[in-house]
Amino acid sequence: MSRKNIITIGGGTGSFTLLSGLKKYDINLSAIVSMADDGGSTGVLRDELGVLPPGDVRQCLAALSDSEKSLRELLSYRFEEGKLKGHNFGNLFLSALEKINGSFSRGIEEAKDILKVKGDIIPVTENEANLCIRLKNNKILEGESKINHSNLQRIGITKICYKPKITANPRAIEAIKKADLIVIGPGNHYCSILPNLIIKDFSQAIRESKAKVIYNCNLTNKKGHTENFDVDDFVESINKYIGRDRVNYVLFNSKNPNQNLIARYEKQEGVRALVHFNQAKNPARKFKLIKGDFLSRNQPNYSKADKLASKRAFIRHDSDKLAKAIRLVGELDSYKSFIKGII
Amino acid sequence: MSRKNIITIGGGTGSFTLLSGLKKYDINLSAIVSMADDGGSTGVLRDELGVLPPGDVRQCLAALSDSEKSLRELLSYRFEEGKLKGHNFGNLFLSALEKINGSFSRGIEEAKDILKVKGDIIPVTENEANLCIRLKNNKILEGESKINHSNLQRIGITKICYKPKITANPRAIEAIKKADLIVIGPGNHYCSILPNLIIKDFSQAIRESKAKVIYNCNLTNKKGHTENFDVDDFVESINKYIGRDRVNYVLFNSKNPNQNLIARYEKQEGVRALVHFNQAKNPARKFKLIKGDFLSRNQPNYSKADKLASKRAFIRHDSDKLAKAIRLVGELDSYKSFIKGII
Repeated sequence: MSRKNIITIGGGTGSFTLLSGLKKYDINLSAIVSMADDGGSTGVLRDELGVLPPGDVRQCLAALSDSEKSLRELLSYRFEEGKLKGHNFGNLFLSALEKINGSFSRGIEEAKDILKVKGDIIPVTENEANLCIRLKNNKILEGESKINHSNLQRIGITKICYKPKITANPRAIEAIKKADLIVIGPGNHYCSILPNLIIKDFSQAIRESKAKVIYNCNLTNKKGHTENFDVDDFVESINKYIGRDRVNYVLFNSKNPNQNLIARYEKQEGVRALVHFNQAKNPARKFKLIKGDFLSRNQPNYSKADKLASKRAFIRHDSDKLAKAIRLVGELDSYKSFIKGII
Repeated sequence: MSRKNIITIGGGTGSFTLLSGLKKYDINLSAIVSMADDGGSTGVLRDELGVLPPGDVRQCLAALSDSEKSLRELLSYRFEEGKLKGHNFGNLFLSALEKINGSFSRGIEEAKDILKVKGDIIPVTENEANLCIRLKNNKILEGESKINHSNLQRIGITKICYKPKITANPRAIEAIKKADLIVIGPGNHYCSILPNLIIKDFSQAIRESKAKVIYNCNLTNKKGHTENFDVDDFVESINKYIGRDRVNYVLFNSKNPNQNLIARYEKQEGVRALVHFNQAKNPARKFKLIKGDFLSRNQPNYSKADKLASKRAFIRHDSDKLAKAIRLVGELDSYKSFIKGII
């Protein structure tokens, strides 16, 4: 059997978690990464050096690197003092490579060589643009970091777009065309997931693809963005931006995290923590739900050096559990007769 | 025949040039590196992050790396905009590794692994201190970058030291003890060469060593530092700080560079460019002079990305010619009968 082409779509720590699991399998893996980030270290580098946003790609490199752990840790190291404070070493690494090689994509290729990366990493676009959201009161929020900290739900969204308009990276479209399996999420819904799907020629490629589409539903909700979202709300939003009911499978965590973690999350975020699934809500849903325990029991392993990220992600997916379930879906046709537990 | 232990002593681009040539031979190579730098990118990192000065070690890493050219170029890349302006990527790399590993020396070991470095790189001290020069008018210049831009010759020097006092890295002393050949220079005399030799326990180790000592005499003189120095002046100064007439061989370039280069140098620096050798000056000198063509014909190859360094070094040594001559000295005993051209 030839190796399956598995494409992930996302950004941020969600992609890190997913790719860390998937890379252990003998598959052709391509990570398509959102390019909307403009906050923190990434934002400063965009402003000051005029580079494309390195943060999300850096997380994919760290996940897919076959280098020693120390090198992967170095990628996630954040300087803590002086003018470098808050800068992530891996971001500086990618920005220097972009400058030396004259393009972000060529910089990524160099980085892949240096870090012995297994798989491909494809920025969803090579255009420079800001993510924008128009609210129902006609106010426009420009910039991912601004959107990330705004309450979108209170007023409601009329449009998500880029300014200026952008097109997809042709390599991203090529990857979708060859895909056997497209895996969306987990990740920040408005800031990591949708910034991929709102690119017209990219969503068109997903619509037309023959691949199965899996959505790794987020574990938790985000204040002002996805408060009280349940699984159907997430899937509806994703299908809307793809432009068709394209999600075939949803991986949903039905295992409750430790009550203390939930309380801590709810205290910090001020929202109901967990994403629920309400089977009765929609008797005619068009996707299959695979529910199970997808919860990580471990301390975050992706970057001890990255205190910011590890603080955020205390209720999080387990890389290996996600990857196993995705592999199952990839081979589901041959298991059809005896698989249970798919709703 | 067992592999020879060759130790280089220096810092800066001089070490880069020398090591780039020596690394091609089948020898045990250790580079002992001055730790006095406090200017530019290195100075900012010392001040803001409290790290040891990475600049000189970075040049040795770049020279000794067996990685692809692109990775070596990355090490020398200087950011040109924003708050990162002037920072050298390799310096950030070493500073992050020092922070993650808890010590500069452990950081270097990590860097050596990542960059596939052939040979050892040993900071001459692990203590943090500033280079100081006391002038004859009792004024004290503190800091290598200050010294580098001061006219030391107009008033004259009474003492060179560190503040606070420091001791040598035990690994540097160990390396000297095992050395078959100690190679000093080329390099900035007061800012890269002497900062090693003024460390008491280090110069004691050189005095007591049975190794042959070679001095690669600088090609050019430096304004206010070594104006009108000839070969004997350099050797006298070096022997003085070692504390014994320890230099056995001097490699001296007797080939004239292109007249335009000389004129350019003299216009820029305001001093007689070339270091001369005056045979009649001292009929009883205790070193052998190996004169020859040690001049580079090529554009600097060490770092296209490092515009600063390439601007400075337009009259410079050829790595391979230096290395060949050093190898000759290392095996001189067996050639004694037929070698000519040693004065």
